[in-house]
Amino acid sequence: MSAPDMGQLYRQVDQHEERALQLLEELATQPSISAENLGLDEMAELCRQKMEEYGIEARLLPTDGGPPVVYGEIKGAGDKTLLLYNHYDVQPVDPLELWESPPFEPSRRDGKLYARGVADDKGDIAIRLEAVRLWKELYGDLPITLKFIFEGEEESGSPHFYRFVEQNKDLLQADACMMEAGGLRSDGHPSLTPGVKGMLNLQLSVRTARNDAHSAMAAVAPSAAWRLLWALNSLKGPDGRIQIAGFYDNVRELNDLERTVIESNPSTEDAVRSALGIDTFLDNLSGYAWQERLYNGPTCNIEGFLTGYTGSGYKTVLPAVASAKVDFRLVPNQKPLDILEKLRLHLDAHGFADVGIDEVYGAEGPARTPLDDPFIQFLDALSAEFVGKSTVVVPNNAGTAPMDAFVEVLKIPTAFTFGGSGYDGSQIHAPNEHIRIPDLATGIKFMLLVFSRFGELTLG
Amino acid sequence: MSAPDMGQLYRQVDQHEERALQLLEELATQPSISAENLGLDEMAELCRQKMEEYGIEARLLPTDGGPPVVYGEIKGAGDKTLLLYNHYDVQPVDPLELWESPPFEPSRRDGKLYARGVADDKGDIAIRLEAVRLWKELYGDLPITLKFIFEGEEESGSPHFYRFVEQNKDLLQADACMMEAGGLRSDGHPSLTPGVKGMLNLQLSVRTARNDAHSAMAAVAPSAAWRLLWALNSLKGPDGRIQIAGFYDNVRELNDLERTVIESNPSTEDAVRSALGIDTFLDNLSGYAWQERLYNGPTCNIEGFLTGYTGSGYKTVLPAVASAKVDFRLVPNQKPLDILEKLRLHLDAHGFADVGIDEVYGAEGPARTPLDDPFIQFLDALSAEFVGKSTVVVPNNAGTAPMDAFVEVLKIPTAFTFGGSGYDGSQIHAPNEHIRIPDLATGIKFMLLVFSRFGELTLG
Repeated sequence: MSAPDMGQLYRQVDQHEERALQLLEELATQPSISAENLGLDEMAELCRQKMEEYGIEARLLPTDGGPPVVYGEIKGAGDKTLLLYNHYDVQPVDPLELWESPPFEPSRRDGKLYARGVADDKGDIAIRLEAVRLWKELYGDLPITLKFIFEGEEESGSPHFYRFVEQNKDLLQADACMMEAGGLRSDGHPSLTPGVKGMLNLQLSVRTARNDAHSAMAAVAPSAAWRLLWALNSLKGPDGRIQIAGFYDNVRELNDLERTVIESNPSTEDAVRSALGIDTFLDNLSGYAWQERLYNGPTCNIEGFLTGYTGSGYKTVLPAVASAKVDFRLVPNQKPLDILEKLRLHLDAHGFADVGIDEVYGAEGPARTPLDDPFIQFLDALSAEFVGKSTVVVPNNAGTAPMDAFVEVLKIPTAFTFGGSGYDGSQIHAPNEHIRIPDLATGIKFMLLVFSRFGELTLG
Repeated sequence: MSAPDMGQLYRQVDQHEERALQLLEELATQPSISAENLGLDEMAELCRQKMEEYGIEARLLPTDGGPPVVYGEIKGAGDKTLLLYNHYDVQPVDPLELWESPPFEPSRRDGKLYARGVADDKGDIAIRLEAVRLWKELYGDLPITLKFIFEGEEESGSPHFYRFVEQNKDLLQADACMMEAGGLRSDGHPSLTPGVKGMLNLQLSVRTARNDAHSAMAAVAPSAAWRLLWALNSLKGPDGRIQIAGFYDNVRELNDLERTVIESNPSTEDAVRSALGIDTFLDNLSGYAWQERLYNGPTCNIEGFLTGYTGSGYKTVLPAVASAKVDFRLVPNQKPLDILEKLRLHLDAHGFADVGIDEVYGAEGPARTPLDDPFIQFLDALSAEFVGKSTVVVPNNAGTAPMDAFVEVLKIPTAFTFGGSGYDGSQIHAPNEHIRIPDLATGIKFMLLVFSRFGELTLG
């Protein structure tokens, strides 16, 4: 096949911007909230239909206990295969009253499109499907084989996804994987993130009596509030060091290349500080140390703690029950189930056998594709070429996504890339989620560039 | 005046049981929830009218910011004056759905009377007013002067009561004071409690950022949840010892008489353990040590703690705000405002200047009238005589009531006595509060006995 004319492709993208927008509006009209088990089957079926309509062979694959995964495949001329991961589920919409237009009725205002999921992650789905359609319309066959998987539980911690990938290992085999895509950074640079932290997410609770008692009884009777508070304090004191024996054993320090890459990155400290509305970071972190902690510091975070009476005024009660939701963000090469076991041992060893781990919401492993992997270098260069500014690469996201399945099970290089529908101000997970409409076309163009070049890549 | 015929008086009580019951039903029909500022003026006015109707000179006295106190006075033949304290406010009724009959529609069932306040404390009001009426009907003048004060904020920590007593010191002067009355213990003994613990009741809170953030940011950003948890942990660790510098300085150890009296008391450990639904007390306390801790152990109790997301499932947030309601029960001679000051110093000294004391719900002092006070000995003997079983005396209640105003300002002996409308199973503060109807008559009889004998007492 002769080299495609990217200029011609890009013009087609611009001419068909309205078509891509309508596709996204159609996807965003279907509610699909995994946390509420709302509309997931309907959304999966809609994605399957759209794939078929766009010339992608598609089917729904079951998971062990979760909603189906939408699988699509379109054979290309060359021998390379690129796996594209997205998720069709979205975050809940609460607080609904803060939305300026209904979350599942896409609304165009001032060059933006508002609806739940337009940035996270239905916009990326629209970009990738539209890129396929445009390429086929202009050139027929794609130069590479594409495999699509759209998961339905990403916003709920992907509890069945790792197992799904294990069960479909052969089907999903590919040369590399692109996860969800991001937009330009606010400083105008594209970003590339070939890793994620893992997460162990659970609830601890304790019961010390049948019912709450009058607080006069605190003189002689145990308190669930204090028991859980002390147990949590034993996990991490004011110095921030996590006290679970062996917690840090498997933490891999950043290597020279990772350090060098991080040191070359423009600082985002001020922007992050301002976005969070804080004066200083923990331990007055700044510069390289701040980035190192952000990317390679495991955490023990209290998502929530509830005990006793917490309404207006007061109530003199001695609480009988207390519970806390705790998440640990893990870095290579920590393993969530190993940390879970060490946590239980810690509680028992510190006199907190009464504190139960009563729910494990998620256990996702960390993952990193090495920065010198050819796929990462390819995306680094391609993003910079496309945008005209250097790519900002970090070893991993500070958050979590089901990347470990690709890296550990399929053993393929994987990254979050440039080319998504959202931007810094998209308010994902919040009311009034939106995209800037022109970013859709930008994403499609970048995806077409990836299609055109991925076949040339020599992978390790 | 010749000695009254108690037998005749008691028969009158029995004959007029229905009248006392109707008075209580009328009082219990008027809602008067101080926590909700509901019906307080109406209730105060109803009490005033009833006093007048019963021959007691009555008026409403203002408080600095709270509902009025109902003051009543009836001059007696002798020179002794007894002050009778009650409260006309009641606890909230939630959860309403657990009530078998509406809380402000008194309902007689199976020899019991159900309604909010029938035990705590409107039953005592009915008993005391009815006792006055019966005495007057039979003998005319009372042998002693009675002064009544019915407070309207006892269930909300009596925030204006101490000041009220200071402002009306001369008016309220008396030889002794009887607080609310209790019923028989479940072992059939009457009880007498000439003291209370004090209480400092407050809310601590901390804000570390403008809004909750994604929990990925926990690697570098401060957490309100951890900040408050560590601050609380610094107040009291798993050994139960309160770490605020100087907290125990003014604790007066129990004296020999108090120890002897406590040691002679029948054990209630099993009953308390069973009522609370717990297996063991703190530190495996039992016997004398258990009672000593219950009566003379100050506490630091977490009434409630709330931070972050605490609904079903999870939400990966880094909480920006956290708050906890904490009550300290204090024993003689601790002072609540001194403890408040020491708490602030403690937080500052331990690196928790960011933790604010943002509400002080109450600061009531502890109080004890000595066990060898003639008034206490008088009530001890009188209760035992009336019931036919020895009186169980403890130095103070493990809970709190505004007794410090009488002991510190009026400097008169004061006690919680036998002769109330309630019993162990009355479910005060809970749905389906009720009394056993015959206990009303018992209370009236005991009150009449007090009227007849109090004049003979030689007070110190």
